[in-house]
Amino acid sequence: MHDWRVVKALLFDVQGTATDFHSTVCDEARRISAGRHPDADWPDVVRRWRAGYFAALDTAERRGADWVSVHAVYRRALDAVLDERGIAFSAAERDELTRAWRRLRPWPDVVPGLTRLKSGYTLATLSNADVSAVIEISKRAGLPWDAVFAAEMAGVFKPHPAIYRMAATYLGLQPAQIMMVASHKYDIRAAAELGFRTAFVARPLEFGADGEADVDYSDEFDVNASDFLDLATQLGR
Amino acid sequence: MHDWRVVKALLFDVQGTATDFHSTVCDEARRISAGRHPDADWPDVVRRWRAGYFAALDTAERRGADWVSVHAVYRRALDAVLDERGIAFSAAERDELTRAWRRLRPWPDVVPGLTRLKSGYTLATLSNADVSAVIEISKRAGLPWDAVFAAEMAGVFKPHPAIYRMAATYLGLQPAQIMMVASHKYDIRAAAELGFRTAFVARPLEFGADGEADVDYSDEFDVNASDFLDLATQLGR
Repeated sequence: MHDWRVVKALLFDVQGTATDFHSTVCDEARRISAGRHPDADWPDVVRRWRAGYFAALDTAERRGADWVSVHAVYRRALDAVLDERGIAFSAAERDELTRAWRRLRPWPDVVPGLTRLKSGYTLATLSNADVSAVIEISKRAGLPWDAVFAAEMAGVFKPHPAIYRMAATYLGLQPAQIMMVASHKYDIRAAAELGFRTAFVARPLEFGADGEADVDYSDEFDVNASDFLDLATQLGR
Repeated sequence: MHDWRVVKALLFDVQGTATDFHSTVCDEARRISAGRHPDADWPDVVRRWRAGYFAALDTAERRGADWVSVHAVYRRALDAVLDERGIAFSAAERDELTRAWRRLRPWPDVVPGLTRLKSGYTLATLSNADVSAVIEISKRAGLPWDAVFAAEMAGVFKPHPAIYRMAATYLGLQPAQIMMVASHKYDIRAAAELGFRTAFVARPLEFGADGEADVDYSDEFDVNASDFLDLATQLGR
């Protein structure tokens, strides 16, 4: 086993890595739909919604005073998807469905895995979600973070270098003492470029049973793990 | 009992309100001194040190890139006090003693009080201490915050309005939905001016047995409490 004693803190992506947004949001869409849209392909709708959110973040320039909440980004992206698919949700229903992103359920390994890791490492989020959304998700799910860091605090979204540097500053640590944990390779690759350690966690169901998640392990990462329990074991906890 | 259902989140001062810095730092000074300074009045030294820290914050202009860690502020303030009192600590000993502010012990009511409050409210720090210090204190003591907010994130210290507004933004709440909890009246008065609810918690031993803490209850605050357990009771938890 590698000696990971140099690592003092772990930073976690939240949407996808720690939480199962696809099943949470699909369930919420079906509940709000209440049988009115029997032909709706909700798994596909949620995948398209998530893709629309990513596209909006990519093109956004929202530093400082122009910051727009991620909730608003999701809300706008939803309109495009529902209109394209001909799903007639009211504005109130669209607002309600968008709030599902604030109530994401954790993957089953997350609470026990974090609990084991917490005895040896400082655990913090590093999420593109709004601070208030990360807090709500974490409080509902009992995620035992030592701190919540989010894009809203940096004024930029991952994978911008400033957000990883912000986390290192707040932790009072060097990048080599911090491991970024995510199921998204663009996220941990951005951290690695700045000298952070990296852990890739495979989440084969991130986009649902019919989704195409990239779950290939790679030697470019310091750790490749099947879930947070496997991560805890590999990090000696 | 007042109906506090409008309040969704509580913000806590850390140094003094949630933790007993005076006894923690005195104990650490005696340990490091190891009997070499039998005449040192450590309770007085720590009071002067804390006062020197406050004076430095008051005169500081450290927004943005010029931000200086609170650890560095304490470290410099210590030199003045020790030299004035003729206490010959080495630089390494001064560094070690300054780190005591990162290991402050909670008052005995804090963990059980926060645990009760956590079931009904979002709990966050709003501290002038460095983010990393708040994390270290909280992790050692098991303080169950939902989030850590600190001056370092705002670029200004309490009682500057920007730090209270930052917390409201990150929580996604209106000031009237947030209660600032502190044993320092300047802190909760600053929050009240912005529309926050306020809770005064009396900490008669904040400056030690011979210190002069202001513990007078006042009608100007929404809640006056003897400790965090009393606060939980008054807030219906």
